[in-house]
Amino acid sequence: MRIALLLAILLVSTPFFSQSDDEKQIKLIYDHALTNGKAYDWLNYLSNQIGGRLSGSVQAQQAVDYTKGQLDSLGLDRVWLQPVMVPKWVRGTPEFAYIETKPGLTTNVPICALGGSVATPDGGLKASIIEVKGIEDLEKLGEEKIAGKIVFYNRPMDATQISTFAAYSGCVDQRYSGAAEAGKYGALGVIVRSMNLRLDDYPHTGSMSYGDTPVSNRIPAAAISTKGAELLSTTLTLNPDIKFHFRQSCKQYEDVESYNVIGEIRGSTYPNEVMIVGGHLDSWDLGDGSHDDGAGCVQSMDVLRLLKETGYKPKRTLRVVLFMNEENGLRGGNKYAEVARRKNEKHVFALESDSGGFTPRGFSFNCSEENLKQVQSWKSLFEPYLIHMFVKGFSGADIRPLMDQDLVLAGLRPDSQRYFDHHHAENDTFEHVNKRELELGAATMASLVYLMDKYGTIPSKKIKG
Amino acid sequence: MRIALLLAILLVSTPFFSQSDDEKQIKLIYDHALTNGKAYDWLNYLSNQIGGRLSGSVQAQQAVDYTKGQLDSLGLDRVWLQPVMVPKWVRGTPEFAYIETKPGLTTNVPICALGGSVATPDGGLKASIIEVKGIEDLEKLGEEKIAGKIVFYNRPMDATQISTFAAYSGCVDQRYSGAAEAGKYGALGVIVRSMNLRLDDYPHTGSMSYGDTPVSNRIPAAAISTKGAELLSTTLTLNPDIKFHFRQSCKQYEDVESYNVIGEIRGSTYPNEVMIVGGHLDSWDLGDGSHDDGAGCVQSMDVLRLLKETGYKPKRTLRVVLFMNEENGLRGGNKYAEVARRKNEKHVFALESDSGGFTPRGFSFNCSEENLKQVQSWKSLFEPYLIHMFVKGFSGADIRPLMDQDLVLAGLRPDSQRYFDHHHAENDTFEHVNKRELELGAATMASLVYLMDKYGTIPSKKIKG
Repeated sequence: MRIALLLAILLVSTPFFSQSDDEKQIKLIYDHALTNGKAYDWLNYLSNQIGGRLSGSVQAQQAVDYTKGQLDSLGLDRVWLQPVMVPKWVRGTPEFAYIETKPGLTTNVPICALGGSVATPDGGLKASIIEVKGIEDLEKLGEEKIAGKIVFYNRPMDATQISTFAAYSGCVDQRYSGAAEAGKYGALGVIVRSMNLRLDDYPHTGSMSYGDTPVSNRIPAAAISTKGAELLSTTLTLNPDIKFHFRQSCKQYEDVESYNVIGEIRGSTYPNEVMIVGGHLDSWDLGDGSHDDGAGCVQSMDVLRLLKETGYKPKRTLRVVLFMNEENGLRGGNKYAEVARRKNEKHVFALESDSGGFTPRGFSFNCSEENLKQVQSWKSLFEPYLIHMFVKGFSGADIRPLMDQDLVLAGLRPDSQRYFDHHHAENDTFEHVNKRELELGAATMASLVYLMDKYGTIPSKKIKG
Repeated sequence: MRIALLLAILLVSTPFFSQSDDEKQIKLIYDHALTNGKAYDWLNYLSNQIGGRLSGSVQAQQAVDYTKGQLDSLGLDRVWLQPVMVPKWVRGTPEFAYIETKPGLTTNVPICALGGSVATPDGGLKASIIEVKGIEDLEKLGEEKIAGKIVFYNRPMDATQISTFAAYSGCVDQRYSGAAEAGKYGALGVIVRSMNLRLDDYPHTGSMSYGDTPVSNRIPAAAISTKGAELLSTTLTLNPDIKFHFRQSCKQYEDVESYNVIGEIRGSTYPNEVMIVGGHLDSWDLGDGSHDDGAGCVQSMDVLRLLKETGYKPKRTLRVVLFMNEENGLRGGNKYAEVARRKNEKHVFALESDSGGFTPRGFSFNCSEENLKQVQSWKSLFEPYLIHMFVKGFSGADIRPLMDQDLVLAGLRPDSQRYFDHHHAENDTFEHVNKRELELGAATMASLVYLMDKYGTIPSKKIKG
């Protein structure tokens, strides 16, 4: 074949791929993240030098100081701490539990207190235990069968849900409200099956609420590992008269002062329009909070660094916000929104990463149809990076309080299959985060921020001005 | 992440879902895989009771016996062993290596012999070492600078490739042909940087070939861990006169008999049209071969079980083939194709899973445009399961020898980010396989087999008959 002909054919058959500015910029971002990312190093420090960062703890303060210091070193236009009062709940001595088949015959099972729970009496609580598949079973059983007993919530996560977050949503009411509801029927305590799709020995903590239950009527609540739950359920089937013992010494203290950590690049053209990207700096105390949500914090920090180092100057003001106290209070998210409202700051875009540091698959958006359509029009730009989800859905707990503003809310959607293996448990640790997966998440976020900044969001017509 | 509002939002965003027969059947398959999958149990046995299954080893034979027994228990129409002669290479005593900065001052580094390599002399090999970035550097350096030395191939995998398999392709010539090529210039041995994107201490073995190098001219070849490679490179930069010592006692024996393990469901309508689904039963010897390719074997076995137990009777004959000796010879794949040709079996579809047991993302196809278009028309059926890749590309090494038949070849494409952290190394072990990810892969494969069987493949017009 002759050269001229060959050339012509090559030109025609090459996939249409004009090296547009957007393609180039996005490739720069991904390449830089994968070869010179900082997220993994930052996470290593947060996880292995500081560890679990429960609100009000020394570690939470260390994390504030460390991340502020790192943001200071990036040469942003401004870095500051936003004070916020947070609850301080302390786990105390390690929890202890056993199944007593008959007096003197006991089997230990792994439990942990749920966040916010009260302690058991000093020597522990021992009582008959009754299994239910959810809060709705309480009414059927009635006070007669519940009073004086421990209630064992054992509805497992639904394995057939492809999104493990959907499976979580279908169970977590047991953990969040189980104690308050069982208390109404005279239960002495509750044991909740861990929110984990895997059978293993890790109990998973998480937030719970007593609602308006008076302090004197609050009953202790603990999570049991999934294997422990299976054992307990089987044992109960064989003999409903067994006793369950558990002991925990957790305690709620007075609120203490903590901080959201914020860094900012001032917008070159529209400095009064604010975009934020963030995660939450606090974590539970059992593991080191690498996936929940160390990953989201370091990715968010790297978004600003990646844009800066690839030479992109945002037209709008871009902030990274590391929120304090997502896990057991959401005080940081609420405080940030409250201050933004008070200062009349106009937020146009908010992106949160709080679903683990796994391979990114896309984003879910809480926004108008017009904005969703615009985002979906960028889909092909993300295809080379295997980013394919651009759907409506939940964004993030910390950014949600901003919602009454006219803005686009988005959440990074990583692969969810492994998330609940680690969530709120002792094995949410650094070695379960893969460096490339973490970096791909940061690059994916930075690319969306770049496009949002370049093309702007579409204001809702309802909003005046 | 907190829950509070997740549920309501998830309900709102549920996609429209008409319950067509295909949708129903595919949902049955996924639900059954996620709640009653067998793949993970089988893999547990293969990995933890048998372990690494190098061709010709006792463990390879145990794996043949075990998987045949398991297939026998599934009530298929026929299960058999297909004899095949395989190479038998044995690693011998653990390898040993050090960098000698000056006489008496040494630092040990982790190495392992490459599969098929010859041994070093009994006491090991010590020589000067010269770093290259690839085979193409040899010619520039010439015999003068290479003869009498060890050649150190140190081109790393390209981190900017989103597909880690693409990064692997860009490096693996160093491992496969490095020794044969360096030998031509009088090198005494080669050390190859492990094919691993992560910095860690695991050396990664893998196949190599001496090509037509006479036996007497073959030089020993070993892989060094990525951290070892970085250390060696830095040390060489500081002082090019260092010596490198390594010792390995691996040995190639005479070929031995082994087997492909095959199970079959006879087609109800077109029994003479054969579809196969498979992986390779052999593995390297350092880990337990969970991802490479225990995962592909147990997924393939489960494809037949899932279809059977969800009540689907294939119109075409469906076989699971567990190929022997993919890693260092491909004898099983070649034998299967040879027998198929001799018996004049008409193969219409072949699917291989040999890219790890990670979250499935889709498939790559080696087939005509017409067949690819048909597959892509099924895309929306896979959307609820987040399966989005239907592209042209490599299918699988074991099924490739069938290619001259008029058939559709396909490979499962799981998420590739973590694959080379484990590939051919001591840490390719069971605990790195996630149960749900493995099961989703099996369900995704079964769903494609179902559609291929139901709608048939489109024969190429060129083929007669």
